[in-house]
Amino acid sequence: MSPIQNARVLFNSVPKGFPVPGETTVYDTTPTIDPDTVPLNGGFLIKTLVLSVDPYFRVAMGGSHLGFTLGSPLAGFGVAVVVRSETPSVAVGKHVYGHTIVHQEYNVIPELGALQIMEKHPNLLWSVYLGAAGMPGQTAYMGWKEYSNAKAGEVVFVTAGAGSVGSMVIQLAKKDGLKVIASAGSEEKGEFLRSLGADVAFNYKTTDTRAVLQKEGPIDIYWDNVGGDALEAALENAAVHARFLQCGSISGYNSAQETSKMFHHINAKALHVHGIIMAHLPLMKYLPEFYATIPAQLANGELKYTEEVTRGLDKVGDVILAVQKGTNKAKAVVLVAEE
Amino acid sequence: MSPIQNARVLFNSVPKGFPVPGETTVYDTTPTIDPDTVPLNGGFLIKTLVLSVDPYFRVAMGGSHLGFTLGSPLAGFGVAVVVRSETPSVAVGKHVYGHTIVHQEYNVIPELGALQIMEKHPNLLWSVYLGAAGMPGQTAYMGWKEYSNAKAGEVVFVTAGAGSVGSMVIQLAKKDGLKVIASAGSEEKGEFLRSLGADVAFNYKTTDTRAVLQKEGPIDIYWDNVGGDALEAALENAAVHARFLQCGSISGYNSAQETSKMFHHINAKALHVHGIIMAHLPLMKYLPEFYATIPAQLANGELKYTEEVTRGLDKVGDVILAVQKGTNKAKAVVLVAEE
Repeated sequence: MSPIQNARVLFNSVPKGFPVPGETTVYDTTPTIDPDTVPLNGGFLIKTLVLSVDPYFRVAMGGSHLGFTLGSPLAGFGVAVVVRSETPSVAVGKHVYGHTIVHQEYNVIPELGALQIMEKHPNLLWSVYLGAAGMPGQTAYMGWKEYSNAKAGEVVFVTAGAGSVGSMVIQLAKKDGLKVIASAGSEEKGEFLRSLGADVAFNYKTTDTRAVLQKEGPIDIYWDNVGGDALEAALENAAVHARFLQCGSISGYNSAQETSKMFHHINAKALHVHGIIMAHLPLMKYLPEFYATIPAQLANGELKYTEEVTRGLDKVGDVILAVQKGTNKAKAVVLVAEE
Repeated sequence: MSPIQNARVLFNSVPKGFPVPGETTVYDTTPTIDPDTVPLNGGFLIKTLVLSVDPYFRVAMGGSHLGFTLGSPLAGFGVAVVVRSETPSVAVGKHVYGHTIVHQEYNVIPELGALQIMEKHPNLLWSVYLGAAGMPGQTAYMGWKEYSNAKAGEVVFVTAGAGSVGSMVIQLAKKDGLKVIASAGSEEKGEFLRSLGADVAFNYKTTDTRAVLQKEGPIDIYWDNVGGDALEAALENAAVHARFLQCGSISGYNSAQETSKMFHHINAKALHVHGIIMAHLPLMKYLPEFYATIPAQLANGELKYTEEVTRGLDKVGDVILAVQKGTNKAKAVVLVAEE
């Protein structure tokens, strides 16, 4: 084979507000690669199949030490197939999964490192392993099991309930016998929340969150994916000893908005606030049971999920913006290539 | 006996900033009482001995439902002696303790209610039962045992370390084998912190908290009595999975100051934030062991404490202001009467 295009998505500039496709990120078609002859030096060559676009991307664009590097391609959760290998433990045809998949069509990987060989349930697409069966689903699963201290009959409020984290939390909460209040940003998503079992589902753009929580609360658990005004409303309607699981605050990623009066509520109601982030959750404690149960339940319909798959690496910038604005309809995945 | 003065301290107006003695609270000498003949109607008559003045008084002046009532006397933690009784279980000469002691020289109590009969260690004054052996000491003890998850070798930062809560926390942390960083508002208090065993003690008015924490941290536990800038500094210097025990935020009680960027730190470092408030701590779990051990350790010097006793019910307003401004030298107690 002669050299072919090896397109990539570069992190080009730190955004001031929302990321701008073509400016914050640039789709670059200039690199080439010859998959048959590119030197592997003991490593292996992967072809990118699916890439996850997650809310944390905006944080990673802020210049923190965990973030994207200016002038380099983005990297994130993804699944790729091994097309050539000089690593004995990584056979051709196997799939690798992890948070370091570079947003480029082909990549030479010197060693497995943080990637893992992943087996897929036959009835699931790989994209599901970036959502309900991947990092977002695992974050929901581990955070809920470790920190919710959920008891049957309690009331939980879940924001961004139609997302891959929120929709898993709703279903775990229903399994545990809780009353679930869930919000999302459209009527269509509200229907999905009800299909997941949410007892109270509403569109936060047309229904006042405070009014709902005053009527249906107080809440014993708040799973926060958004921060901002929803968090304030949850604080105001929290029961004593309520647990606040702080998984995200996308409402503040693109502006300087701050949350006020937090500590008054934390102290007065003896709240318990836990930061929920994949990197610091007890993976060894929960991942074996997660993989033993969740993919099968997703495949047989016992657990529901949705995803919004966009075709083409050139669309990454648009999808990033959609995720930050919440205009995506479900967990956002970019399909880079078929196998 | 003919009627005698029964002075009291009235809550007169909601303060805008710091409470103003004589305006926020008014010392009122007009009521009279005849202790020998006042009808008890099955209740009992108590003579107030000592009253606690605590930081939360400012919150109780804010008009919340748990607060002081305008036009009525203040009430708070105190100890009183029973001088007449028609209640069989409450003998004359016994002492009652609780958070509902009215700031008045004599009070007729219809039933024990939230008060409890208290026995005193022979080598301690009753005032100690309002500080190290009372609500502040118990808050420290229960909060630390229940939520610190302390491990030997960890680093804890304690603000308002010379107060009755902070000084107990410092000593409990040293018993558990931690490195203790503690701050207070004067050089004299800094000396006291070192006498309690603090490894690093500093005057936050003359030494930069961030610089200390950057050098001596990161911190695994933060016991917060002050909020505001110290809290921000602690968040910035927290280790992953650090525990934040939010017991008070006096820096914000008298102004509109807000804490920002809280959620960024909570999430990124997977922090665990617990509201610590006496009313919602597990009393039944800890109070028996507290009373079985702590007063004796305070009496024999194994645990240290300080207090600043001011004589005279007419001084309550001044003491309230001193506590809010932090110009008191130690746990503030007002001595109303000798037995």
